[in-house]
Amino acid sequence: MDAWRTAIVDSRDGQIRIRGYDVTSLMSAKSFTDTIFLLHQNRLPSDGERRLLDAILIGVADHGSGAPSCAAARLAASGNRRSLSAAVAAGILAIGDEHGGAGSGCMQMIVTAIQRMQAEGLSLEECARRTVEEVRASGARLPGLGHRVHASDPRTSALFAMARDAGVAGNGIAFMEALETAARAAIKPLPINIDGALAAVLHDIGFAPEFGRLVFIIGRVAGLSAEVAEELTREKAMRIRIPVTYDGPPPRPLS
Amino acid sequence: MDAWRTAIVDSRDGQIRIRGYDVTSLMSAKSFTDTIFLLHQNRLPSDGERRLLDAILIGVADHGSGAPSCAAARLAASGNRRSLSAAVAAGILAIGDEHGGAGSGCMQMIVTAIQRMQAEGLSLEECARRTVEEVRASGARLPGLGHRVHASDPRTSALFAMARDAGVAGNGIAFMEALETAARAAIKPLPINIDGALAAVLHDIGFAPEFGRLVFIIGRVAGLSAEVAEELTREKAMRIRIPVTYDGPPPRPLS
Amino acid sequence: MDAWRTAIVDSRDGQIRIRGYDVTSLMSAKSFTDTIFLLHQNRLPSDGERRLLDAILIGVADHGSGAPSCAAARLAASGNRRSLSAAVAAGILAIGDEHGGAGSGCMQMIVTAIQRMQAEGLSLEECARRTVEEVRASGARLPGLGHRVHASDPRTSALFAMARDAGVAGNGIAFMEALETAARAAIKPLPINIDGALAAVLHDIGFAPEFGRLVFIIGRVAGLSAEVAEELTREKAMRIRIPVTYDGPPPRPLS
Amino acid sequence: MDAWRTAIVDSRDGQIRIRGYDVTSLMSAKSFTDTIFLLHQNRLPSDGERRLLDAILIGVADHGSGAPSCAAARLAASGNRRSLSAAVAAGILAIGDEHGGAGSGCMQMIVTAIQRMQAEGLSLEECARRTVEEVRASGARLPGLGHRVHASDPRTSALFAMARDAGVAGNGIAFMEALETAARAAIKPLPINIDGALAAVLHDIGFAPEFGRLVFIIGRVAGLSAEVAEELTREKAMRIRIPVTYDGPPPRPLS
Repeated sequence: MDAWRTAIVDSRDGQIRIRGYDVTSLMSAKSFTDTIFLLHQNRLPSDGERRLLDAILIGVADHGSGAPSCAAARLAASGNRRSLSAAVAAGILAIGDEHGGAGSGCMQMIVTAIQRMQAEGLSLEECARRTVEEVRASGARLPGLGHRVHASDPRTSALFAMARDAGVAGNGIAFMEALETAARAAIKPLPINIDGALAAVLHDIGFAPEFGRLVFIIGRVAGLSAEVAEELTREKAMRIRIPVTYDGPPPRPLS
Repeated sequence: MDAWRTAIVDSRDGQIRIRGYDVTSLMSAKSFTDTIFLLHQNRLPSDGERRLLDAILIGVADHGSGAPSCAAARLAASGNRRSLSAAVAAGILAIGDEHGGAGSGCMQMIVTAIQRMQAEGLSLEECARRTVEEVRASGARLPGLGHRVHASDPRTSALFAMARDAGVAGNGIAFMEALETAARAAIKPLPINIDGALAAVLHDIGFAPEFGRLVFIIGRVAGLSAEVAEELTREKAMRIRIPVTYDGPPPRPLS
Repeated sequence: MDAWRTAIVDSRDGQIRIRGYDVTSLMSAKSFTDTIFLLHQNRLPSDGERRLLDAILIGVADHGSGAPSCAAARLAASGNRRSLSAAVAAGILAIGDEHGGAGSGCMQMIVTAIQRMQAEGLSLEECARRTVEEVRASGARLPGLGHRVHASDPRTSALFAMARDAGVAGNGIAFMEALETAARAAIKPLPINIDGALAAVLHDIGFAPEFGRLVFIIGRVAGLSAEVAEELTREKAMRIRIPVTYDGPPPRPLS
Repeated sequence: MDAWRTAIVDSRDGQIRIRGYDVTSLMSAKSFTDTIFLLHQNRLPSDGERRLLDAILIGVADHGSGAPSCAAARLAASGNRRSLSAAVAAGILAIGDEHGGAGSGCMQMIVTAIQRMQAEGLSLEECARRTVEEVRASGARLPGLGHRVHASDPRTSALFAMARDAGVAGNGIAFMEALETAARAAIKPLPINIDGALAAVLHDIGFAPEFGRLVFIIGRVAGLSAEVAEELTREKAMRIRIPVTYDGPPPRPLS
């Protein structure tokens, strides 16, 4: 088998270099969030970029033990107490299109809209109007808008204010705000949710769409770790038994 | 890197052989359970051995959607509908010492007791008495005895009757019955549970202790698959939200 | 939280019933493969259906330690020897669209084609010709046809012969054979591969398309279990280190 | 089912509080590493504590694509390109006693030794000497000492210097240094490795032993994410096929 190739880490002769930087230099002078940025973008972030990435990772770390990811991790820990990695992995496996995954879809929509704006010479507002029309016509939901629980998400305005302060707000935030305006006119008030907010900001600091899901995984793993540690510390093995009602075939004999 | 070595499958020149047998011959003439036996024991089972392994796989396949493994699989499917392998894997990750893993511990106890019986020239009954004493003295529970829910487990007597019918009952079953007798005399009635029953039978048909956990995984994956399929067919995304009560620190400002 | 509802297992009062059948009756009289069929179809299979499902499960159980699923399981076992469920789960996670997942896509194609045949009053042959044209026009590959390694797959003819013997061959097999003929005429000889063969047979014995992926997971878990057991028995911890060539940025100082 | 209880996150009425702190306040003013500390310790870290935790997370993030965790993640991505969470989870599942897990064992040894020092009125040096003797007598290896590859690990001295600068060096570092001295006298030079170094520092900033493994998971997930993103961007599906040599039974017919 040929050696695999990688441009991430070089580990030889007692030295470990991440994207060319000596790991001990990074340890002494940089933060974990700087390193997450470096690992994915091949460069260190500006102060503003790092602050935004920190805010997003904090914003997705944990929203409560009852969410699918946290609950799956606690169930795994309940039956399999000895393996911390199994419990954390079970939590990650509940992350997908429906839970934590909307950011990637929203980033893809932003990329497509901005390319089209440039290719067709449209304004952002016009692009947003057409996006609303087309998504409605297809019967799908607009990614990044609307809330299951809250009327508005306090994390959205916090993120956008930080992005403007840091001078990194760009077309991503502008497009999502235009989309919110267009949706309000065409449908009803649908505030930008956390998925839409993090998609806009991650686009503006240079991340590719798939990072919308990866950033949720990286942030959420901190919460999963704390949830698993709490389950093992506070609760007994096998305490969790979900109540079930059976509505299948009645008792029947093997013929 | 050197090639890995394996004694399981040889796949070359348009032929696939499992432990030396052509896969199409196995497909035409043998059952999946025969193949499970072959993969782990390097030989095909007798009719009796196959029937016992079938019975054990059926016995552990599914006990209800609320068990940690099934519930973890459904939670993962609830948040991540597109990935069937992620949901099944999340279910498997809930299998451990406390859920589905007791069989391995019980098989290890049986192996140790029988080695000691032979080395020290003891009777099975004496061996069982000493095992009860020693486990009690250590403060641990006797693996394979006692039930959380049921007074006795109907699967135990079914398995033991089948083993006797098939002529494969050996020292494993004899030891577990002696252990039950010794425990009744020294403590209280503690019937052999499914973990103890499958451990005794798997020992008697020649499996190593770690297979006690693997057989649970192989059998349960059939149930996990059906649970995940039912979740995706009958339920909406994100329908599962576990209710949570917060009892941590009250609201506090950043100083 | 409301109780979850399920039509699979009822476990109460010392009795476990799967789809209405007492588990001890199933253990005494039926095979694991019967139970897999029952769990997913809510009825027991005919002899022919069971033989076909057995053959498919055997056919996908293991093709060699170097496939992504088996290799991922062995890597996990190499670093995390204590957790059998973690290693098996890691193997399952490598199963997806590109590895083991083509059966589902092929079953979906068969369902769509047969619905169209009935709706538009087309012959199977005409349906197959149009499918070849449309898939080619879209630039995609025809699911279920063509081989990476082998000129033809011996498992395909074995499965189809068994299906005819057992009297369960139906529109699924007929459509795949028509598709092979149409592809040969329009493109080049592209024999039906194992994914296409199991898709055709599973369709003909009544399974829904998503079972195409689930059956691969259920069958492969038997092979993963054997691979993990072999890794733990024959090899030392951490023996696996994939060789890597670094081609990223050269050493650079933190500015 | 009773509601689950948790002291981590309270999410109600449009507000999300982590350990009592409003999440938007944390997003505006704190780093992801502060939040990781808060989630696990129920208080925010000092500047020194945060810098040490940052350094540890950076130190374990990635050592090369060929390690079991990174290679398992890439294998899963190779077969199952659509599911980022499956690939990252597969990587986490390779983390265990042998890969990334030594920190927890070392933290447990430190806790035990320091309790004994206090209970028996021993000096740290005497405690370290006895630990070396006892571990040698048991035939085990001393956790946290010795290197597979490097003569000494540059990350160890970097971490210890940072801990002294930040004023957080305590009994954990002192004990590991005494252990290194005692091992050199009794056996041979065995420098403190990264597991021993992070165990000492995490103990000194107040973490419980199981966090030794969790911190490896949290840090490594950043590297796994980058490895998976690189695999999907640079490589084709199914490019990875591990070479295998078969040494099992020769071809044999079904009797």
